[in-house]
Amino acid sequence: MTTRTQLRAATELDRLCVDTIRMLSIDAVQQANSGHPGTPMALAPIGYVLFTRVMRHSPGQADWPDRDRFVLSAGHASMLLYSLLYLTGYGLTLDDLRSFRQLGSPTAGHPERGLAPGIETTTGPLGQGIATSVGLALGERMLNARLGDDLIDHHTFCIASDGDMEEGISSEACSLAGHLALGRLIVFYDDNHISIEGPTSLAFSEAVGARYRAYGWDVQNLGENLALDAIEDAARTAMSVEDRPSLIICRTHIAPGAPHKQDSASAHGAPLGEEEVRLTKRVYGWPEEPPFHVPEEALAHFRALRERGAELYGEWLQRVRAAGAEHPDLAHELERLSRRQLPTGWDEGVPRFHVTGTMTATRTSSHAALQWAAARVPELVGGSADLAPSTLTVIDGADDVQPGAYAGRNLHFGVREHAMGAIVNGLTLHYLRAYGSTFLVFSDYMRGSIRLAALMGVPSIFVFTHDSIGLGQDGPTHQPVEQLAGLRAMPGLAVIRPAGANETSLAWRYAIAAREHPSALVLSRQGVPTWNPAAVPDDAIERGAYVLRDSYREPHPPELILIATGSEVHICAQAADALEAEGIATRVVSMPCVENFAGQERSYRDRVLPPAVKARVSLEAASTNDWCRWVGDAGEAIGMQSFGASGPAGALYERFGLTPARVALAGRRSVRRARERGRVR
Amino acid sequence: MTTRTQLRAATELDRLCVDTIRMLSIDAVQQANSGHPGTPMALAPIGYVLFTRVMRHSPGQADWPDRDRFVLSAGHASMLLYSLLYLTGYGLTLDDLRSFRQLGSPTAGHPERGLAPGIETTTGPLGQGIATSVGLALGERMLNARLGDDLIDHHTFCIASDGDMEEGISSEACSLAGHLALGRLIVFYDDNHISIEGPTSLAFSEAVGARYRAYGWDVQNLGENLALDAIEDAARTAMSVEDRPSLIICRTHIAPGAPHKQDSASAHGAPLGEEEVRLTKRVYGWPEEPPFHVPEEALAHFRALRERGAELYGEWLQRVRAAGAEHPDLAHELERLSRRQLPTGWDEGVPRFHVTGTMTATRTSSHAALQWAAARVPELVGGSADLAPSTLTVIDGADDVQPGAYAGRNLHFGVREHAMGAIVNGLTLHYLRAYGSTFLVFSDYMRGSIRLAALMGVPSIFVFTHDSIGLGQDGPTHQPVEQLAGLRAMPGLAVIRPAGANETSLAWRYAIAAREHPSALVLSRQGVPTWNPAAVPDDAIERGAYVLRDSYREPHPPELILIATGSEVHICAQAADALEAEGIATRVVSMPCVENFAGQERSYRDRVLPPAVKARVSLEAASTNDWCRWVGDAGEAIGMQSFGASGPAGALYERFGLTPARVALAGRRSVRRARERGRVR
Repeated sequence: MTTRTQLRAATELDRLCVDTIRMLSIDAVQQANSGHPGTPMALAPIGYVLFTRVMRHSPGQADWPDRDRFVLSAGHASMLLYSLLYLTGYGLTLDDLRSFRQLGSPTAGHPERGLAPGIETTTGPLGQGIATSVGLALGERMLNARLGDDLIDHHTFCIASDGDMEEGISSEACSLAGHLALGRLIVFYDDNHISIEGPTSLAFSEAVGARYRAYGWDVQNLGENLALDAIEDAARTAMSVEDRPSLIICRTHIAPGAPHKQDSASAHGAPLGEEEVRLTKRVYGWPEEPPFHVPEEALAHFRALRERGAELYGEWLQRVRAAGAEHPDLAHELERLSRRQLPTGWDEGVPRFHVTGTMTATRTSSHAALQWAAARVPELVGGSADLAPSTLTVIDGADDVQPGAYAGRNLHFGVREHAMGAIVNGLTLHYLRAYGSTFLVFSDYMRGSIRLAALMGVPSIFVFTHDSIGLGQDGPTHQPVEQLAGLRAMPGLAVIRPAGANETSLAWRYAIAAREHPSALVLSRQGVPTWNPAAVPDDAIERGAYVLRDSYREPHPPELILIATGSEVHICAQAADALEAEGIATRVVSMPCVENFAGQERSYRDRVLPPAVKARVSLEAASTNDWCRWVGDAGEAIGMQSFGASGPAGALYERFGLTPARVALAGRRSVRRARERGRVR
Repeated sequence: MTTRTQLRAATELDRLCVDTIRMLSIDAVQQANSGHPGTPMALAPIGYVLFTRVMRHSPGQADWPDRDRFVLSAGHASMLLYSLLYLTGYGLTLDDLRSFRQLGSPTAGHPERGLAPGIETTTGPLGQGIATSVGLALGERMLNARLGDDLIDHHTFCIASDGDMEEGISSEACSLAGHLALGRLIVFYDDNHISIEGPTSLAFSEAVGARYRAYGWDVQNLGENLALDAIEDAARTAMSVEDRPSLIICRTHIAPGAPHKQDSASAHGAPLGEEEVRLTKRVYGWPEEPPFHVPEEALAHFRALRERGAELYGEWLQRVRAAGAEHPDLAHELERLSRRQLPTGWDEGVPRFHVTGTMTATRTSSHAALQWAAARVPELVGGSADLAPSTLTVIDGADDVQPGAYAGRNLHFGVREHAMGAIVNGLTLHYLRAYGSTFLVFSDYMRGSIRLAALMGVPSIFVFTHDSIGLGQDGPTHQPVEQLAGLRAMPGLAVIRPAGANETSLAWRYAIAAREHPSALVLSRQGVPTWNPAAVPDDAIERGAYVLRDSYREPHPPELILIATGSEVHICAQAADALEAEGIATRVVSMPCVENFAGQERSYRDRVLPPAVKARVSLEAASTNDWCRWVGDAGEAIGMQSFGASGPAGALYERFGLTPARVALAGRRSVRRARERGRVR
C-alpha cells in the first residue's frame, strides 16, 4: 500500500485537503444562503480519512459492484459528500457546488440518489440512512454467501448524527444488525452535543455506547481525538471485528474554528454569514477571496484517488476473471445481478388459477405465486415483521437468514416495520429483489421508508395483508381504513389490490419486473372467489383496470358501471346479477391498480369507462375520498366513513353496509340520476 | 393496611383467584374461537398482584383523577384486562366476557378506551401502550407540580411484550422517560421468548435490561420467579426508586400449564382448542364444565376491592377537602381539569390580524395565536421533535420541562416524532391540553399515534409546519405531497390548513376547544398575505369552508368558483383578479378544513358551492386525489403530480405550475366546458 503510506506522510497536505472540504462547504452554503455549514466542517476529517485512506472505491467506476458503500445518514451535511465527490473525481464539478440547492442542480439540499454518481442512497429524513445501511451491509453478506469472497467482499460505512440515534427506526435497525452480527457495517456517530433546539442534553442523555453494546455491537469511543490517524486506526479496528457491527463515537464540535459559531445551534441549519465566513477563513489561514478556492496540490492529491481506485477495480476484475474461469456461472450471476437483469424467461408460465367452488384469501394465492416467483428468481428474498404465519410470505424450503448464515432467503425482521422498510430498500439497492410484509394498517409505521423507496425509484416490494375490516375480530386498531388513500397519494408507488388468485399472481409478476418504482401488494385475510382466468387479461395490473364482466347486451354500452378492487369485486358481481335481472345492463370493472389505470392513454380509459355512461358506483372497504374521480357527479362511492369494529368479517360488512343490496340500491339511484340528466338534454 | 395483610395470608385463595383469571381467559377465547389465550394466562399473576395488592385504584370510581394508571401495552392479551375488570367490579359482566370479540360487545379484540370503565387507553398496535404510558407518567408529574401531592400523586403501571420492546416508538419514548427521570413509571416486561414466527431468538437477541439501563432506567430481573410476593416486592422496590423509571423483567411461559401448548407460538394468537382447554383445566384442577366458572370465594375476594378502593378514594377526598380549605384555587383547578372544562371565557378575544403589506407565514401567525391561547389556558403544554425554532411552537416565558422540574410548559421531545405523538396522547388523557410539532412530511413518522388519538377520540393537537414545496431548498425529502390526502382520509381527525393569520388563530381556538377528536394544524414556512379579518367568519374552521371573496355582481351567482387552502388561496385570488377583468364572475372559496365542510348541512354547502355552478378549479400544493369531489366533472384540480425538488420556493411554484396564470387558464377551460354543457341542454 505505497499509496497509503505516502498519504500518511503528507500531514501538511492532509490538513490542506481537510480544510478544502470545510471551506467548500461553508462557501456553498453561503452562496445558496441556505443549508447546514457546521456539520460538514466537523465531519471533514472523518470523510477525508474514509475516502482517501480506508474505503476501497473507485471514483471512475462509481457502479463497481464490490465497492465499499458510504452512507451519509446525516443528510443535512450534504456538502461534505458533494465536496468529496467533486474533489475525488466522481463527476460533480465546482459549478455544481456553486449551484448548491438550486433548481435542477445535482447538489440538492439533501443527497438524492440518481442525481450524481457516488450518492448511494437518498438521506435527510433522520434514521433512514443508518437503517438503509443495515440493509446494504446485510445485502453484501447475502451476495457474498452466494458469490464468494472474490466477487463480493466489502464494507458499508455510515456517518450518523444525534438525530439518527434518537429516531426509533435506527433503534429497530441496529438491534437487528446486532442480532445478525453484521461485522461489515461500521457507523461513525457524530456526537456534537448540538441539536436544533439547543444542547442535546435538553432531551437526550442516554448512554449511546452502552445501548449499542446491548445490541451486540462493538463500540469504540474516540472522545475528542479526531486526529486523522486516530480515525483511521479506529476504522481499521472496526474492520477487524468480523462478528459484530461497529459504532465509533466521535465527540465533534460543530463549525470548528468559526470564531463566533463553533458549538452553537446557530451553526446547524443556517449559513455562517459573510462576516463569519471571512473570519473563519482567517482562522484557517485560507484566502478570503475568491470563494470556492481549491488549492492545486489538494485537488491533485484527491484526484490521485482515481488512479488508485482504478488499480483496486482492476485487481478485482482480475479476481473475477480468475474466479470466472473456475465458476463461470458465478461470474455471470454477478454480472446479471449488478445489471439488475432478471433471469431470462423468468416470467413465463405465471400461475393461473381456475374457478373453484371454494373461497381463497388473496394472501393465500400470494403465497402460491411467491413460490412460483422464488423458484425462478434466485435473488428474490424477504420476510415479515413477525407476522409471516399470517402474511404467508415464507419461501418454502429456503433457509432462514441468521447470524453468520446469510445464504438463506427468509428474513425475520422482528416487530420492526419501519426498519424493515429501510432494510428492504438497502437490500434492493444491493442487487437483490427484496420484499417485506406486515398488516396493511401497520404500513403507517413504515411510511417514511416506503416514501424513500418511491422518491429514489427503487423497486422494493411491500406486502400488506389483512387489508380491510375483513380481518374481523382483531378490531379497529388492526383494521385499515385510510391506508389505501394514503398510499395511493404517494407519487411513484404502485398500489395493487388484486381481486382474486389470478390478479394476485399477475401482481407478483408485475412487482418483480418493476425496475424503477416500488410496489405495495394489498391482500385480503378473508376468502374471495377465484375469477375465470380467461376473464383476467395478462396485462390486468399494467393496465390498472379492466372489464371483468359486462352486460349481456354487448356491443351496446352498459347503462351502469360498478367499479371495485380486491375483496369487494365479488360483492359488485352479486349486485350486478340483481341489476341485470331488473334489466339494467351492468358492467363490472376490476381496478387492481388505480394509478396505473390513471396513466393509461385516454382511448383505453374510455373503453373501460365510456364517458357516455354516467351511472357509476364504486365499492371499496376503505376511505372513499379518492373515488369521486372515477364515479363522477352522477355516481356514488361506497366505502368506510368511520373506523371499523371488532366482530366477525361477515357481520362487519353488513354493519358498514358493504353489501350487494346497498350497491344495487346505489346503482339504481345512479341510473335514475343519469337518465334524468339525459332527459334534460 | 390490614386489607393487604389479609390478602397476603390467603395464599390458597390467591392461587384460586389467579387461576380464575386464566380460566376465564381461555374460555372466552375458545368461545369467540378467536384471540390470544397464552399471554393472559402467563400474565395473570402480575395482573392479580397489581390490581389486588399494589395499585391504588377504586373499581367503583374508575374516573378517580389520582388513581394509579394501568396500561396493557400487550393489548392482544385483552382478556387479562377484561377478566380483572369483571372480577374487581369495574362494571364488565360475565356476559360481556362471553361475548368477547363479538360485534357491539365492550370486550373488543384489543382494549378500546371508552368501551368499558377501567380501559385507560386503546392498545394493540405494538409500542403505543408503553409510549402512551410515558405520557401518562409525565402528565402525572406535571399535574403534581401544579396541584401538589395531596391532589395528584400516583403511579403508572404498564405491561409490555417483546413486540413492544422491538418497536422503535418504545425506544424513543423510553429514552425520553429516562432523560426526564419519570420515577412514577413502572413497566413489567413479559419476556416469554415467543413471537409469532417462533422463538424471539429468531430476530431479537439484544440485552434488553442493559439497553434500559443505558436509557437511565432502574432494571430488576425476576427471572422465572413469578411468585406473587416476588412480584409485589419488585413492584414496591420500583416504587421506592423515585428518580428513574423502572423496568421489571419477568421470564414468563406462554400458556403455562397447557399440556401441549405451553411455550409454543401456537398458543399466542389462536384458541387452545376444546380438547386442550379441557386438559388444561384438569392440570389446574378446574371443573371442565361449565365454561366461565367463577368460584364464589374468588369473586368475593376480588369484589372486596370495591370496598377497599372506596376507602382509598374517600381518604383522597379528605385530603382534597383539607387542601381545598387552604388552597381552594387548587381544588377548583383539579375539578376543572378532571372534568376537562376549559377556563370560563378563555376563548374571548381571539387574535384578529389586520391587512398589512407584508407577507406572514402561518407558522408565524400560529406562534402569536399560541401565546394568546397559552395565556388563557394554563393546561396548554407542548413542544416539538427538535424543530421548535422552525415550527415556532414555544410558549414564550414558560419554563422547560426537565428532569425533576415538571412545572414548565415547554417540552423537548428530541428527534422522536412517533413517541411525541403517543406522549401527547398520554398527556391529553391525563387532563392536559397538549400539542406536538414537527414538519408535515414527518407526520409520516407518527401516523401510528395520530391514528390512535383519532380512534380514541382524544383531542390531541398536532402542529405540522413546512407544509408544501413552499419550504424550498431542503428538497423533496422534506417536501410533503401526499400527507394531506393521507391525513384527511383518517376518520375523526380534523385537518386544518389555514390561509392566513386570521384563519390560523381561529384554528388554534378550534383545536383547543375540541373535546372528542384530535386536530392537525398544517402551516406554511413561506409568507402569505393577511386577509381582511372582516372577510374571515368567526366560524370559518367549524364550517370548514366559506366564500372569501366573490364576483362583483352579487347577488347573481358566480360563473366560476376557485377553491383553495392555505398558502394557495392568494394564488387563486390573483387568478380571480385576471378572470374578473375578462368578465368572468369568479368566486374564491377558502376551505381550511375539508372534513368539517363535508359535515355541514347541504344548504350551507350549496350556498358556498352552488350546484348550478359547474365551472370549478381547486388549487393545493399537494396530491389532488381527493379534490375531484369538490370540482366535479366539469372542474379541474390543480396540485402536485410528483415529488418536489430542491430550489427556492418561488422557482418551485413556477416549475410545478402552481401559478395564477395556470389557475386562470384552467378556469377559462372549465367555464367553457360548463357553458357547452349548458348549451346542450
